[in-house]
Amino acid sequence: MTKRWKITIEYDGRSYAGFQKQPDIATVQGEIERAIKAFCQQDIRITVAGRTDSGVHAQAQIAHFDLDYRHADGGARLINGFDLAKAINAHLMPQPISIIDAQEVDDDFHARFGAKEKQYTYRIINRPYGLALDQGRAWWRKTHLDVETMQEAAKVFIGRHDFTTFRDAECQAKSPIRTVDDIQIEVKEILNGQEIIFHFFGMSFLHHQVRNMVGTLTLVGEGKWSVDDVQKALDAKDRKAGGPTAPADGLYLVSINYT
Amino acid sequence: MTKRWKITIEYDGRSYAGFQKQPDIATVQGEIERAIKAFCQQDIRITVAGRTDSGVHAQAQIAHFDLDYRHADGGARLINGFDLAKAINAHLMPQPISIIDAQEVDDDFHARFGAKEKQYTYRIINRPYGLALDQGRAWWRKTHLDVETMQEAAKVFIGRHDFTTFRDAECQAKSPIRTVDDIQIEVKEILNGQEIIFHFFGMSFLHHQVRNMVGTLTLVGEGKWSVDDVQKALDAKDRKAGGPTAPADGLYLVSINYT
Repeated sequence: MTKRWKITIEYDGRSYAGFQKQPDIATVQGEIERAIKAFCQQDIRITVAGRTDSGVHAQAQIAHFDLDYRHADGGARLINGFDLAKAINAHLMPQPISIIDAQEVDDDFHARFGAKEKQYTYRIINRPYGLALDQGRAWWRKTHLDVETMQEAAKVFIGRHDFTTFRDAECQAKSPIRTVDDIQIEVKEILNGQEIIFHFFGMSFLHHQVRNMVGTLTLVGEGKWSVDDVQKALDAKDRKAGGPTAPADGLYLVSINYT
Repeated sequence: MTKRWKITIEYDGRSYAGFQKQPDIATVQGEIERAIKAFCQQDIRITVAGRTDSGVHAQAQIAHFDLDYRHADGGARLINGFDLAKAINAHLMPQPISIIDAQEVDDDFHARFGAKEKQYTYRIINRPYGLALDQGRAWWRKTHLDVETMQEAAKVFIGRHDFTTFRDAECQAKSPIRTVDDIQIEVKEILNGQEIIFHFFGMSFLHHQVRNMVGTLTLVGEGKWSVDDVQKALDAKDRKAGGPTAPADGLYLVSINYT
């Protein structure tokens, strides 16, 4: 009997050319499908909630797949979530990808189309001195960023808008209209600087949308742009009117909500 | 004129065979002294607050050294802390070591002998599924650990004791007597488990003392040892009476206080 499985995946994006499978290059999807095949000898295609780019991390990416698998020992009992995750992980080790949850779900569960809200987090280490523990895990910005004005400017993005200015030229989404439910900016004091953590909430985001919004907000934080400049950029509906794309290093897919 | 400098160092311990310089192998001290020489052509020996073992991380290690250096440009003005840190970092890049502060200090400042209190943190990811983002950055423990009983057992270590049971056989300290000022255990909920963060405070610790205390506390957390067993182990003054040494991965030197 085929069951549909929902798996939750944690990964360090630095080792992969993004989530989506590509020939002859390590990707998160490619590695997981290889690991599934290694344990059950089946060619399974997984469907992911949101593809991430090269270098982008996930604390809890979601994917689903259908599998007919029975334990060989002691008859034909169906595999449970714990054993399934363990079996896939055994073939992923020591790579920085881990299946951290596996749940049997209804046949109509869809990782991508069923997602109601996603949370992405973007980390900036803002200090004059370079990164050691956070290399590849955060964006290093030397110049002091004013968080209060970035918070003000972030309000421009909240709500339903045409985000053409903030989508990548290669974005394949049919519509540039997206709804940003909320943006929260958290600040932690660190030696000689601050860590700035942006939290983005929305049902879905365009390609590079979060990174382009962060890049633009840092222009405001540096005092190069006003809040009004951000509004004008959004209104322009032209990628060339937007700020730079923040690097993948600081971006984390944090959670996906289905209810 | 020679000045004494106090530098604060962040590093990812995974890339180094510990802090202390060794021939033909990358160490944090070796790399920093190489970087100092690269920028000022002087053989400088740095003195560190607390040597860390291979794989142990630092958020704010402290070292001092004496240097007579003047900017060549525009006369002979003395270098400032910001430029000094930047110059060393330029020769450390892209290694995961960063000088995150440099301060001119009095000639009697001593990174090691002047330290009044150190804080070490130890991270455990306690869940059935393996590590991805925290590989080499935390200790993975599959079995559920009871934090309340570990907190109770940690009290055994607080205060002035003979820590022979918890020092490494190779520890070179003259006395096994140390004072643990405090141990705090923080818990964060994570998917299918918990992150446990131990905070240790004390003027100094013996070789492997923190890792041996953590290893022993996990025996209590698993229910294999009682709080009383920890007391007996401490009283035995015998390394063989203690629990296992927790791996370096989870250990961070967090701060050193000089006042």
